[in-house]
Amino acid sequence: MTCDADSATRLAAFEARLTELEDREAIRNLIASYGPLADSGDAAGVAALWRDDGVYEVGGFGANRGHAAIAALIEGPTHQQLMHDGCAHLLGPVHIRIDGARAVALGHSCVLRHRDGGFEAYRVSANSWELAREADGQWRVTRRSNRLLDGDPAARALLSPTPGTTGSGES
Amino acid sequence: MTCDADSATRLAAFEARLTELEDREAIRNLIASYGPLADSGDAAGVAALWRDDGVYEVGGFGANRGHAAIAALIEGPTHQQLMHDGCAHLLGPVHIRIDGARAVALGHSCVLRHRDGGFEAYRVSANSWELAREADGQWRVTRRSNRLLDGDPAARALLSPTPGTTGSGES
Amino acid sequence: MTCDADSATRLAAFEARLTELEDREAIRNLIASYGPLADSGDAAGVAALWRDDGVYEVGGFGANRGHAAIAALIEGPTHQQLMHDGCAHLLGPVHIRIDGARAVALGHSCVLRHRDGGFEAYRVSANSWELAREADGQWRVTRRSNRLLDGDPAARALLSPTPGTTGSGES
Repeated sequence: MTCDADSATRLAAFEARLTELEDREAIRNLIASYGPLADSGDAAGVAALWRDDGVYEVGGFGANRGHAAIAALIEGPTHQQLMHDGCAHLLGPVHIRIDGARAVALGHSCVLRHRDGGFEAYRVSANSWELAREADGQWRVTRRSNRLLDGDPAARALLSPTPGTTGSGES
Repeated sequence: MTCDADSATRLAAFEARLTELEDREAIRNLIASYGPLADSGDAAGVAALWRDDGVYEVGGFGANRGHAAIAALIEGPTHQQLMHDGCAHLLGPVHIRIDGARAVALGHSCVLRHRDGGFEAYRVSANSWELAREADGQWRVTRRSNRLLDGDPAARALLSPTPGTTGSGES
Repeated sequence: MTCDADSATRLAAFEARLTELEDREAIRNLIASYGPLADSGDAAGVAALWRDDGVYEVGGFGANRGHAAIAALIEGPTHQQLMHDGCAHLLGPVHIRIDGARAVALGHSCVLRHRDGGFEAYRVSANSWELAREADGQWRVTRRSNRLLDGDPAARALLSPTPGTTGSGES
């Protein structure tokens, strides 16, 4: 094997490793933008995190499909009242599992609300984010499922790794 | 120096940089899986984050060594009651410092519990995660030390960078 | 084009991609060190996250410029009392946007305080971190702006992406 052929092989392997790191970074950065966009009231920015036909299934508020429905959550009275009171959509780190052009990210969210001069944990939820890398190379959310961690077994199940995975880190 | 030799040198340097990024990503993803695994009650999944002889020293519950002892924390009555009530083991981002096949990650955890129709911050702790890259290339926890941030100086000390480091970011 | 020339071109492209990932990692790790440094009372370590002339504008405590002023916040009576009571400066993940040697990271912070045997969310804030990569290659904070999310429109505005960005993830 010549050095060139060897280099080409190594370069291809490096590119695959780089691409996986970039995919993880893009997914993490996308999810990290949710809280700032929601708390600044950027309804179009929030909606654009989802694919055109993406679904945001939020505990107590049903399944919302598509950009208009998701933007309406931000523009609606519940969210606007939260913003007016003072709120933080604080997320935890997400555990990311990528399988080709699909990914699942699992993590918590906690909505903190200003109230009576202090802050309260108003909603504490489990979240499963399903994402796809679209033709333009961008990752977008295809479904975010959110359920209150109030003892509901379905909320706990959202945080469970899917069958066949070890749940113990990288593949 | 020929172009080939130069390329080989550059490739070796790139591989080292790629590997460090992958190590950081693996450690972050491993730690990010703790909360979802704990809150979904996956005792074996939680235990598998640790090395066979790994230790989870959790404030108020002593030092627990090995997979069986760590799984027993998840299967035990305290954790099961928390899950039944509704809980979120919310972690913060971790500061990661890698030294060869060893790493230390520092960060907070906050256990939120559903209670009386709302949520309370039930435990707020300092965490020092010590990890090792094992022969199979996987990072696993060798020791997680957790202490309540209730004014205990030992909890504050857990969050202090070790002597010789600047604590100011990347090496 | 020879294989060598092609490899050189690909190597240059890979290096740029590696460097962006390293920049993101350095910024994330720097910000993740703030909480542990603050909660362990490492005033010099906290200050060193900022550039020499960096500013920490913290809601209710004014704009603090330079290492001595920033260290004084950690050494001052408010922070020392918090540490004595028991506190966690819990941050959320940050959304990072890099533009050459400048970056902006947006995210939340929540100061949890031990009180009456429990923990309360004492301060919940919006944060905009502005950073620069200095001549030594290290990223440092040039300005951190922090405002309580108590309904103040200026706090919400801190979390808004700047004009011209989509706020929807990677460029």
